[in-house]
Amino acid sequence: MTASLKEGLSVRYPIIQAPMAGGITGSELVCAVSRAGCLGSIGAGYMNAEDLADLISDIKSSMERPFSVNLFVPEQTDTSASEIQNAYEALRPIRKDLAVQESPPAKLGGKGHYEEQLETVLREKVSVCSFTFGMPAKEDVAELQKNGTFVIGTATSVMEAILLEEQGVDAITAQGSEAGGHRGTFSGPPGQHMLGLMSLVPQICDIVKVPVIAAGGIMDARGFRAALCLGAQGVQMGTAFLTTFESQAHPLYKEAVLNAREDQIVLTKAFSGKEARGIKNQFIYDMEQETRILPYPMQNELTKPLRKAAFDQDNPEYMSLWCGQSPRLSRSQSAEELIHSIAAFAEEITK
Amino acid sequence: MTASLKEGLSVRYPIIQAPMAGGITGSELVCAVSRAGCLGSIGAGYMNAEDLADLISDIKSSMERPFSVNLFVPEQTDTSASEIQNAYEALRPIRKDLAVQESPPAKLGGKGHYEEQLETVLREKVSVCSFTFGMPAKEDVAELQKNGTFVIGTATSVMEAILLEEQGVDAITAQGSEAGGHRGTFSGPPGQHMLGLMSLVPQICDIVKVPVIAAGGIMDARGFRAALCLGAQGVQMGTAFLTTFESQAHPLYKEAVLNAREDQIVLTKAFSGKEARGIKNQFIYDMEQETRILPYPMQNELTKPLRKAAFDQDNPEYMSLWCGQSPRLSRSQSAEELIHSIAAFAEEITK
Repeated sequence: MTASLKEGLSVRYPIIQAPMAGGITGSELVCAVSRAGCLGSIGAGYMNAEDLADLISDIKSSMERPFSVNLFVPEQTDTSASEIQNAYEALRPIRKDLAVQESPPAKLGGKGHYEEQLETVLREKVSVCSFTFGMPAKEDVAELQKNGTFVIGTATSVMEAILLEEQGVDAITAQGSEAGGHRGTFSGPPGQHMLGLMSLVPQICDIVKVPVIAAGGIMDARGFRAALCLGAQGVQMGTAFLTTFESQAHPLYKEAVLNAREDQIVLTKAFSGKEARGIKNQFIYDMEQETRILPYPMQNELTKPLRKAAFDQDNPEYMSLWCGQSPRLSRSQSAEELIHSIAAFAEEITK
Repeated sequence: MTASLKEGLSVRYPIIQAPMAGGITGSELVCAVSRAGCLGSIGAGYMNAEDLADLISDIKSSMERPFSVNLFVPEQTDTSASEIQNAYEALRPIRKDLAVQESPPAKLGGKGHYEEQLETVLREKVSVCSFTFGMPAKEDVAELQKNGTFVIGTATSVMEAILLEEQGVDAITAQGSEAGGHRGTFSGPPGQHMLGLMSLVPQICDIVKVPVIAAGGIMDARGFRAALCLGAQGVQMGTAFLTTFESQAHPLYKEAVLNAREDQIVLTKAFSGKEARGIKNQFIYDMEQETRILPYPMQNELTKPLRKAAFDQDNPEYMSLWCGQSPRLSRSQSAEELIHSIAAFAEEITK
């Protein structure tokens, strides 16, 4: 028998703080969310095993509540030196604006940190482990579960949900087209499967047996209730937690989200080579017609020094300002306030 | 004080059968929907005034319930003879497959039927008139309202909803990116504002005072309830009514929808020059890389003989198979059965 999501996650409210990678989900945010009865998440996609172990240890020393680690399933990576050179050239105006003096990297890609991240999650017996950008291997899912970890996969279509269920995951996050940040799509051509939650959630719920978590554009009690009406057992919220006091997003990033309009939110491959949703700024504008963009994760590595320089220079025009389609619903508040504004409905609906 | 949507529409359930243009919404469908306590709609966009008057008269002779007429707000149209010639050439393979022998039209565009359609709606004192592809003029809105007609505009962004409210409309349809058929977008570049309902509805509801109707991907009681949770006072459903017995869609079109998967539903400008969502078939596939496509409504006029030939030849590969993102939720049933499956929740929630 399939356990309910609340039971599986051991939380009071079936609300997951989305694992926003890139340094946003520090100990403070994860602990605040988990302490308030929801599930805090580490966006560990870009972290090496040592930093991940340190963060897990920080969190464990602050609280005993369950929390989650999210990993990026690695993809094939192969790029020629001339493609790297071209993509490097395409970024020249932005490098100039930021006064970044970097030579073109000789090599990009490589095996990444996935295996070590997974080992860390196993060793630390993290209560929940979620995956995106692909399917975790069946053996890894089984090993995590044997270790007491609840495993979540991310789907952007019904077929992806079916494939994830076959891998044995305990629950599936249905990522709607409204979602900020990277698309989790792993089947079909990139940029496909831009399904709104209103379509995605019920169609997945009709097919899979495991609990479904709705993600994308959900910011308040209205979205929470709507997601449950559609058949989801819980929600995952990114942008809503991004602007909380505890989030480690750059203050000007938070400000950009708080002031954004829904028609400024676009999809772009410019930062990472993989479609992601964020606020249109100078970086996206400059790269709009650009074809010299490397596949993920190489483009991401290539633009990393630029994004870091933008962060250090307090220049949001060149940061990746990931944001879902509901920025007008974002608020400057604590994670606890956000959760409490939804919790009354959560108690009532999910009891 | 703003009236509730149910009061404004004088219906038992705040469910609108979407005005699908192109001959789908005949008297049988409109009457079945209105008789079951919802709002049937004529998709009159492409109709001349005489045919529209005849259909209205048919409907009125069958029942006294309220129903709606939907009009396309006209757009600037200007295309050179050489652009027409190029777009004509681009369709050559499709013309050949269908054995259609048409010479290139000397002229396309022109003033259309809008003024006469509007006069017909006024003369017939139709209870509800909705608009898409733009904003009705303030004077037209006022005249319709003075005549006892409830006026609805279509928005795909918050800004469009604000603009429509300024025109004085009585309610606003929030068309999510999930919706089948043509995008109603009238501000910003074409193809913009692909907002999922989960984001679009609450952001519009927070800004405008008039009732909001959610449209896009809603197929059953789950979608209906979710839309109301988000703040909408009612829903508009197209694809769900398209496969009902009473719909005049081609039987093979209905079959295509009933068998479609969500990942076969794409956006295309190939049929009409305006972005619209439908099932990917040979026509869309053939035109995928094509740049020789005229703006709306000229491309629509240009492809009309091809679509008609495809219809007559029972060849769905060259019909426009408009469909929302939830085809897996479509059922072969009567309009009344569809409405009854939602009505129990409608009574409970909207009382």
